[in-house]
Amino acid sequence: MRASVPNRGRFITLEGPDGAGKSTQAQLVADTLRAHGKEVVTTREPGGTAVGNRLRQVLLDPQTPLQPTTETLLMFAARAEHVAHVIEPALAAGRWVVCDRFTDSTFAYQGDGRGIAKGAIETLAAFTHAHCWPDLTLCLDVPPATAAGRMQERTLDGFEREDDGFYRRVREGFLKQAAREARIVVIDGSSALEVVSKAVQHAVETFIRRTEAA
Amino acid sequence: MRASVPNRGRFITLEGPDGAGKSTQAQLVADTLRAHGKEVVTTREPGGTAVGNRLRQVLLDPQTPLQPTTETLLMFAARAEHVAHVIEPALAAGRWVVCDRFTDSTFAYQGDGRGIAKGAIETLAAFTHAHCWPDLTLCLDVPPATAAGRMQERTLDGFEREDDGFYRRVREGFLKQAAREARIVVIDGSSALEVVSKAVQHAVETFIRRTEAA
Repeated sequence: MRASVPNRGRFITLEGPDGAGKSTQAQLVADTLRAHGKEVVTTREPGGTAVGNRLRQVLLDPQTPLQPTTETLLMFAARAEHVAHVIEPALAAGRWVVCDRFTDSTFAYQGDGRGIAKGAIETLAAFTHAHCWPDLTLCLDVPPATAAGRMQERTLDGFEREDDGFYRRVREGFLKQAAREARIVVIDGSSALEVVSKAVQHAVETFIRRTEAA
Repeated sequence: MRASVPNRGRFITLEGPDGAGKSTQAQLVADTLRAHGKEVVTTREPGGTAVGNRLRQVLLDPQTPLQPTTETLLMFAARAEHVAHVIEPALAAGRWVVCDRFTDSTFAYQGDGRGIAKGAIETLAAFTHAHCWPDLTLCLDVPPATAAGRMQERTLDGFEREDDGFYRRVREGFLKQAAREARIVVIDGSSALEVVSKAVQHAVETFIRRTEAA
């Protein structure tokens, strides 16, 4: 965890399974921050840089299934570029960064989903971004069946073609992460859009107030 | 280090700076093994698989300089695929694998060259290929000036455009690795080709005899 630096921006991540509504809510988070006068950078993982997007293509290509070890290393490789070239420079310049997925997804997908040891992921996280952790994480929780229903209209990538057990483990993984980390706020993503949006907005405004009071 | 398994092949790597003559000598190693009745698979890093070759392009692209952390993670990502799909299956089938570069290059280039901590590389190696280490490594040692002279005729990639200090550190890195690991045989790569070839052939034949006596 980093020490608070004056004028440094804040790092907010959205987490949860595909189909939980992260992209829509990321936009709302950015709009809410801007309404409070913050300069905002929105980005996503895997990707967010030229190299990261090339790695995203390798990671999400359904034609080339990867070893869980490889997948984990590539996620962190893309993240190392993303932190160095996008996230850290923005935070240092006082901007707020809103990122769709970060290391909590690696704990849930590669850890709980694919069986990579939690300790190995912690080591890779320390190697890749020891001094850059989210200040606030909004985790949208939806039952696998709800997420799957919402995904049926999309063309599925490599991560979206897993069996039910995988999605159950990923969901539990996110909830375990939330139980461990005070920065993670779990929001029921299965409610109607207005209800979810209201909860997200409330969490962001509470966080802004806490930041300004500090 | 793995336990010896009957009929398992042996894993031989070539190491050293670019311009040391590794590709030529890798061919000689393979020929020598075949002359002794071994089935041989020749391969190289980074690369050796479809995914590995896509990562090789990212790694060697002079247009996209990478963070040392990213470079290290990508090397191990490519290696994880290479070990799982090429090296381990070949060894398990009794074939001998001759590989141009492996983890010793990561210690020398990313470790000594770029300043990534040796402990971090050891952790990544254990994460990626805990049970798959070379049985014999031939390290071709040449002074940076000799290697640079030999490289002038090629189009240089990202690794080949570094300053002199980098190459000195890489060379020292290889020699330090050799001092730590009994499997590494250092061969003076600056001599005339026939002399180097003779030394390589001698090292391989000595290793074959030792293997057959075991």
